[in-house]
Amino acid sequence: MNTMNQTNKIQAAYYVGNKGFEISTTQAVPPAADEVRLAVGYVGICGTDMHIYHGVMDQRVAPPKVIGHEMSGTIVELGESVSGFALGDEVVVRPLDYCDDCPACDAGHSHICHNLKFMGIDSPGAFQDYWTVKARTLHKLPKSVSLKQGALIEPLAVACHDVARARLVAGEKAVIIGGGPIGQLVAQVAKSTGADVLISEVNESRLAFAKGNGILTVNPVEQNLSEYVSEWTEGKGADVVFEVSGVKQAIEAMTEIAAVRARICMVAIHSEKPAIDLFQFFWKELELLGARVYEYQDFEKAIELLANKEIDIEPYITSVSILSEINKAFEQMSGNPQGMKALVSCQAMAENSTVVGS
Amino acid sequence: MNTMNQTNKIQAAYYVGNKGFEISTTQAVPPAADEVRLAVGYVGICGTDMHIYHGVMDQRVAPPKVIGHEMSGTIVELGESVSGFALGDEVVVRPLDYCDDCPACDAGHSHICHNLKFMGIDSPGAFQDYWTVKARTLHKLPKSVSLKQGALIEPLAVACHDVARARLVAGEKAVIIGGGPIGQLVAQVAKSTGADVLISEVNESRLAFAKGNGILTVNPVEQNLSEYVSEWTEGKGADVVFEVSGVKQAIEAMTEIAAVRARICMVAIHSEKPAIDLFQFFWKELELLGARVYEYQDFEKAIELLANKEIDIEPYITSVSILSEINKAFEQMSGNPQGMKALVSCQAMAENSTVVGS
Repeated sequence: MNTMNQTNKIQAAYYVGNKGFEISTTQAVPPAADEVRLAVGYVGICGTDMHIYHGVMDQRVAPPKVIGHEMSGTIVELGESVSGFALGDEVVVRPLDYCDDCPACDAGHSHICHNLKFMGIDSPGAFQDYWTVKARTLHKLPKSVSLKQGALIEPLAVACHDVARARLVAGEKAVIIGGGPIGQLVAQVAKSTGADVLISEVNESRLAFAKGNGILTVNPVEQNLSEYVSEWTEGKGADVVFEVSGVKQAIEAMTEIAAVRARICMVAIHSEKPAIDLFQFFWKELELLGARVYEYQDFEKAIELLANKEIDIEPYITSVSILSEINKAFEQMSGNPQGMKALVSCQAMAENSTVVGS
Repeated sequence: MNTMNQTNKIQAAYYVGNKGFEISTTQAVPPAADEVRLAVGYVGICGTDMHIYHGVMDQRVAPPKVIGHEMSGTIVELGESVSGFALGDEVVVRPLDYCDDCPACDAGHSHICHNLKFMGIDSPGAFQDYWTVKARTLHKLPKSVSLKQGALIEPLAVACHDVARARLVAGEKAVIIGGGPIGQLVAQVAKSTGADVLISEVNESRLAFAKGNGILTVNPVEQNLSEYVSEWTEGKGADVVFEVSGVKQAIEAMTEIAAVRARICMVAIHSEKPAIDLFQFFWKELELLGARVYEYQDFEKAIELLANKEIDIEPYITSVSILSEINKAFEQMSGNPQGMKALVSCQAMAENSTVVGS
């Protein structure tokens, strides 16, 4: 068998409910023919992980479960039918397990498969020192992208998907409503396309973060957003609006600030069926585009953006903790609007390994 | 001056408010350099005309005014700089007066110009025996399309625009919610693209009309629409949904019956900001497309569909009245769900003319 650094006992952080993780020693999962085993490098804490931590997804997750899906790692074991990858390859996982046998998969939209399992939510995740996954989920990291940076590829791929869905092109003007981690990354990807970008955000530290990364900002509590955008666009309105905030005011604003024939990309999840100004959709022939996760090419694009230094991802890394301190890492990020991305290093406590990555 | 059948005195039907029209003799409007004068053939009564008739648009229309915009006619006088048209040409008018000097016009979307004047609402319309319009609004009718049929080109162009906005292609399955005149025409245009088409409608006479034109129908009061569409599409859902009904239940249904990555074309005007299931937009990556009026190519497409006999428009003509009986024509159509399209013949009462058309 094609292996390196193999170990039977691994350490995994189990979400046990009620804002708690427990570290357990468990049995390694040997890869099936189409799978690989990864030594997990770094795992980012996603907004969804925070939701799980707060217990609001217990029904879907059914603790105890290993969660986590924003990750990088190194291949340490190859299933016998895996080709195109080698031991020691540094990779990231596109954490989508699709059925390949439903109308969505048939139509080429496997990322929103009717039977999609999201790895790290619907199946075991990456908060462990070794993770066994299907080889079809892998994307290779080039040498110029460190494992630490690699853990940001997944949220960056979300942003790449959003920008692709919105068909944003150079010279257009895009407004991002909401300056959390995804909003900031959407702004960076949008900027990399050659678009002019504006973030609307109420939190001062997030505004400062955006400014520090060269993004134009507006605080809609202090300035009238519609008037600001109208002036910024010389009366045209925004060619593209990304709604990333999830708040009601944004639903009102998005149609107001949109230009004739603008695309509004719905990145935030609004579960409460908000009232939408359909008259504006008619009057200005607006377009609303739902966006969910990412496709193969979004991961490749995200890797390319980091490899070519088109985006400096380092400022997004707020903290790095070790797996045994995962509870503290979640606690610190909980309700911390200053924080962008907290990483958990998963090789620091593994017996057969040392810390990897940059 | 390049004229035929010229007359100084013309007959016009003025909407005077409170469900009433008055026929007056008025002064002919000589065409400016870029205009033509038309002998109006037939004018259809549009849903918007009915709204005006019922008084709900009095503020915008400011009676007394000549309304009407679904028309056909014959060129009887040419402004001196008009080229490409000749006296006697049978034409239809694309009733959009755009400014050519706003961001929407600059971006090639003059049909939704920031300063758009809709002819027949914001400026004098076609319910008169002669109408003077800009030559840039004209489309020539081929000999194979009669003036009577030509009056249906405008609503058919609406349907062509909706189908184009939805990017419907052969082999796809489209559901049209609402079987009024526009819904029925959308179904015909959709069918002409090679798509499979289903109309959802509650009114039995409209269902019968659709069936009579070879369209599959479902009554959502009698059958569960979601289940019906799921079965019809073998679990996939509709590739395209046209919301043409304007009712609240349709807003709920449209996201339910939509396939992954479906396009929902919003044809109806919902002025009351309905609650929309944005979670479905996220989950299935749906697309909502506002559609308003039409573009140049939609008129050309509509004319082509009639010229090539791809659509039989004759069943849509419910009645033909003469201009002096316009009050009766509006009365008869008011709240008559059986009626598709009532036409008003505008040359029947003109002194210098006889009835034209097929």
